[in-house]
Amino acid sequence: MRYRRIPDETIRRLPIYLRGLLLASERGRRSISSKKLADFVGVNPWQIRKDFSYFGDFGTRGVGYNIEKLAKEIKRILKLDVGQKAALVGVGNLGSAILTHPGFGIYGFDITAAFDVNPKKVGRKIKNITIEDVSKLRTLKRRKIKLAIMAVPRQVAQETADALVKASIKGILNLSPCYIAVPKKVKVITIDIAMDLACLPYYMPVS
Amino acid sequence: MRYRRIPDETIRRLPIYLRGLLLASERGRRSISSKKLADFVGVNPWQIRKDFSYFGDFGTRGVGYNIEKLAKEIKRILKLDVGQKAALVGVGNLGSAILTHPGFGIYGFDITAAFDVNPKKVGRKIKNITIEDVSKLRTLKRRKIKLAIMAVPRQVAQETADALVKASIKGILNLSPCYIAVPKKVKVITIDIAMDLACLPYYMPVS
Repeated sequence: MRYRRIPDETIRRLPIYLRGLLLASERGRRSISSKKLADFVGVNPWQIRKDFSYFGDFGTRGVGYNIEKLAKEIKRILKLDVGQKAALVGVGNLGSAILTHPGFGIYGFDITAAFDVNPKKVGRKIKNITIEDVSKLRTLKRRKIKLAIMAVPRQVAQETADALVKASIKGILNLSPCYIAVPKKVKVITIDIAMDLACLPYYMPVS
Repeated sequence: MRYRRIPDETIRRLPIYLRGLLLASERGRRSISSKKLADFVGVNPWQIRKDFSYFGDFGTRGVGYNIEKLAKEIKRILKLDVGQKAALVGVGNLGSAILTHPGFGIYGFDITAAFDVNPKKVGRKIKNITIEDVSKLRTLKRRKIKLAIMAVPRQVAQETADALVKASIKGILNLSPCYIAVPKKVKVITIDIAMDLACLPYYMPVS
């Protein structure tokens, strides 16, 4: 069964639900209502039910969702059930923070390669990963790594993306505060921390 | 004039449009069509027009948007025209990356305080900001700082949020991979890099 025409926003919320389910499971729960899950993840219950409706029938009214079953199904939809390898490009402050980030495991992710342009960093080890020179990006295809996280200065973001596309990368998480152009077959998600912060004042009371 | 019932997703896209407009302006443009702006920011033109429709009439059909006027209007809507001060809590790898992040300026943001629990870091200076002990968080109210960026380990995320709420912080950008509970009057935006990455495989072709 394939899912079509599912809004990007729904797809972006699925990992949020997955995290909530895993947290609930850690606390010994076996089933959960959409209302309770809503409390866990900070999304409206109606939004949760609407998002889940795209995928058929996940729960039984009055009984709630079976946590294990639902988590497994979300992982399958997101293709996280196959184990995903990812490469990191740029091991500065942000890149280092990502390499030591504890949160990737629960999504079945594994950062298995890291690259930097600085010769002083190349060869160093962080968390069992030896930093390689960026010229080695072309080895990604052979190593079957299809996901990349870019934590490079924006001045070199486009050329880094070009090198990743050349190395057959299919998905890029871009952490540089800029837009990068890639072929349609490559999916890019850009996170700009400053931009996310820029939404906050809107919600604040006028002083 | 106040804007009501505008979807959160629209608000989250406004800074993306703002960045696109500022980039276009840097390149010497004075006006821009929704199609061209769409190319700049990677959002569908119809989505841009729909988002702008919440705020009245921004453009003239066939002529496009006046960049300066539109950027000013978006800043006003987001309350970025008044100059916003923000505090950073947690100066590890991620916090350091944020302090040296070049992207805050264009949104009128200014990180004016930084806090850490580590006595070795307290007193050190990064980018003209002297790191203070977390016990000083209570001074934020007096200093009229209402926004905070949390880059702390998830184990202490809730207690940090509690301290920020006590210090009258009104908006929190949470970078810990966990949900934090705050009173309704406080707006929280959580960014989890692992979670954002978790969306990518969905869009990838099956190998």
